Amino acid sequence: MTSAATGDPHPGRRLSRRHLLLAGAAAGIGAASAVGIDLSTRPARSAHQAAGAATAAVPATDGTETVTFYGAHQAGVDTRPQASVTLLALDLNAGTDAGALRRMMRVLTQDAARLTQGTAALADSEPELAVTPARLTVTFGFGPGLVARAGGERPSWLRPLPAFGIDRLEPAWNDGDLLLQIAADDPVTVAHATRMLLKDSRSFTTVRWRQTGFRRTPAVEKPGTTMRNLFGQVDGTVNLVAGTADFDSLVWGAAENPAWLHGGTGFVLRRIRMNLDKWDGLDRAGREASVGRTLAAGAPLTGTHESDEPDFAATTTIGFPVIPEFSHMRRARSENTAERILRRGYNYDDAPASGSVSDSGLLFVTFQADVDAQFVPIQRRLDELDLLNQWTTPIGSAVFAIPPGCTADGYIGDTLF
Amino acid sequence: MTSAATGDPHPGRRLSRRHLLLAGAAAGIGAASAVGIDLSTRPARSAHQAAGAATAAVPATDGTETVTFYGAHQAGVDTRPQASVTLLALDLNAGTDAGALRRMMRVLTQDAARLTQGTAALADSEPELAVTPARLTVTFGFGPGLVARAGGERPSWLRPLPAFGIDRLEPAWNDGDLLLQIAADDPVTVAHATRMLLKDSRSFTTVRWRQTGFRRTPAVEKPGTTMRNLFGQVDGTVNLVAGTADFDSLVWGAAENPAWLHGGTGFVLRRIRMNLDKWDGLDRAGREASVGRTLAAGAPLTGTHESDEPDFAATTTIGFPVIPEFSHMRRARSENTAERILRRGYNYDDAPASGSVSDSGLLFVTFQADVDAQFVPIQRRLDELDLLNQWTTPIGSAVFAIPPGCTADGYIGDTLF
Repeated sequence: MTSAATGDPHPGRRLSRRHLLLAGAAAGIGAASAVGIDLSTRPARSAHQAAGAATAAVPATDGTETVTFYGAHQAGVDTRPQASVTLLALDLNAGTDAGALRRMMRVLTQDAARLTQGTAALADSEPELAVTPARLTVTFGFGPGLVARAGGERPSWLRPLPAFGIDRLEPAWNDGDLLLQIAADDPVTVAHATRMLLKDSRSFTTVRWRQTGFRRTPAVEKPGTTMRNLFGQVDGTVNLVAGTADFDSLVWGAAENPAWLHGGTGFVLRRIRMNLDKWDGLDRAGREASVGRTLAAGAPLTGTHESDEPDFAATTTIGFPVIPEFSHMRRARSENTAERILRRGYNYDDAPASGSVSDSGLLFVTFQADVDAQFVPIQRRLDELDLLNQWTTPIGSAVFAIPPGCTADGYIGDTLF
Repeated sequence: MTSAATGDPHPGRRLSRRHLLLAGAAAGIGAASAVGIDLSTRPARSAHQAAGAATAAVPATDGTETVTFYGAHQAGVDTRPQASVTLLALDLNAGTDAGALRRMMRVLTQDAARLTQGTAALADSEPELAVTPARLTVTFGFGPGLVARAGGERPSWLRPLPAFGIDRLEPAWNDGDLLLQIAADDPVTVAHATRMLLKDSRSFTTVRWRQTGFRRTPAVEKPGTTMRNLFGQVDGTVNLVAGTADFDSLVWGAAENPAWLHGGTGFVLRRIRMNLDKWDGLDRAGREASVGRTLAAGAPLTGTHESDEPDFAATTTIGFPVIPEFSHMRRARSENTAERILRRGYNYDDAPASGSVSDSGLLFVTFQADVDAQFVPIQRRLDELDLLNQWTTPIGSAVFAIPPGCTADGYIGDTLF
């Protein structure tokens, strides 16, 4: 659903003063935030959203809940975040030409559609594992290499992000030709779907990287609760909300994107290592100052509730800003309301290297119609100055175009090929 | 609780014919099985079991459920398996003498007790993450190196398992001085507890290995359902059941163990890689023959229900055994009822190496009072001959002694030091 469907061609112009003030705060922790979108209080606006709204009203508890696969948009973007995710980047083999790509995407689409509805994949070797969809979604993304292989037009922003001074990118976690975001409320469901889809693509691709993440289980993290990251911070108070005009224009919008991408969006994954050992050395006041929010409630340091509007002008009795100039919240904000993104991130906590206590952080996943116009400016400000940079390090970076959804007769990517 | 508490000094003697027939089948898939203990239909027999029974009756749904920490036994053995686990092996630093060990175990015990009850650790740096216990248990195990450092008597079986022909052990996954099994129904809870306990132990130890595993989320996997492994098999139909005399004698029993271990048990972890790619080449009949059970229901090939007793004498019309001679179920069984173990395993699904589709398998965790008398004979039979060996490979192996529980005045290991 594009913003046109709302009957308002310029939904961005109706932004309130509050939106303006909070705009950049949507970037959350050092562009290192993860957040849940709460659909429970929003009107259903599409099949995906309706599914999200339904499960929000009656939280998923038995694994039978499904999210609609076919539609104008791919699921897994405006879907309330599931508890487990596997993010996969595949590289196309040398022999995978446009014809092979079509065949692969047809098979992948068909099996993704089946698995998300609790039906075994066509050549499912373990059909008994397919009967628990648990809100499974499969979201496909195309890297610049795939678009070129298909002979399609590349959106101008579909390329590696510019190099940032804070980046310490490791070769293992970057880029790729084809993205699969596989998410469900049950990790066995994610593992099985991942395996079936990898089998479908194995003769066309090789695995470039795989990253897994988690949030609290659905029954524990009530819909509407903002998640905490592994720093213990309430993370992602402000975010785009599915079903709003802002969401439609800033996620599904962007008329300047190539026609094949209309109804789609842009995807950024930043793998952000959080130095928990170093974070230990910081006291509670220091932690709150670094972000500009309290740890207990996630409220701005000038307020008492998580949803309170920050007062950036407030000063202490000796004249210093209550919300420090270098705090993350202040650095992330923008006066430009177009510089907003949808965050849909996950924690990661991998086995630490020898001698280290942890290898933890965020899979900072964002969706935005135009990566250059929305994501990059926020990241640039945080790159220049952000207290949180002392404890967070981007070690992976990838950009993909998320094509639109498809009908039951079509397949994901059929607008490109 | 020892078997003496039941008033029956020889509980094993009351075994039924059914027990006898199924005895060895408790080893499940290639000593590569994982299984849930269902406490829902069993009388509560200890604080831990009572907690398990309570949550089984009303499945955990909001993360507030706790498992009692203090008691005769450590929790996490007879506790209904939680959805997420982290298994950590630590090596003692050179300077960690018996006095340091005592100090470390006091701190670890105190924080484990607090965290399992939803209370922040004493020096918790993210107390907001501690408020969701989600049935958290922390179970400590001692390797031979720790027992030697403490100057205690080593149980005869506390050493690396004998080498088996099927083993392809990788250096990354073996042995260790101190084990922490940290399990809860929520992965964020596990991550936070892991981090707090590693901080407590960091000046005394270094991390040797860390393995994480998962089962279906509690709301999806109803209590009483036998889990499926990533081969799609119903896995672990027969298992020791907490609260029974068998459990008491075969898990908590073993008078021959050193006195400091009374009320404790033995722990084995086998990391068993499952070659899912190769498994794909096997048809459904071949898969069922390899184990001796149907895929759909997990029933013996001679029966129709999962709980049906197998008929090893049954033959096909042309005279072959219905349950093949080399099938896993047949090979695993023993006429010796003492050769039984408690399985409490987890799936793992790690990022595959380049060019491979998956790196998946089982963290095959077992508890038994005497590893040499109970675990080793089963493994030896499977090592000699077991169809499943074609698709499963042990790549890690570790043995620990699980000391008894403690009182609120004591600490785990206080019987040793």
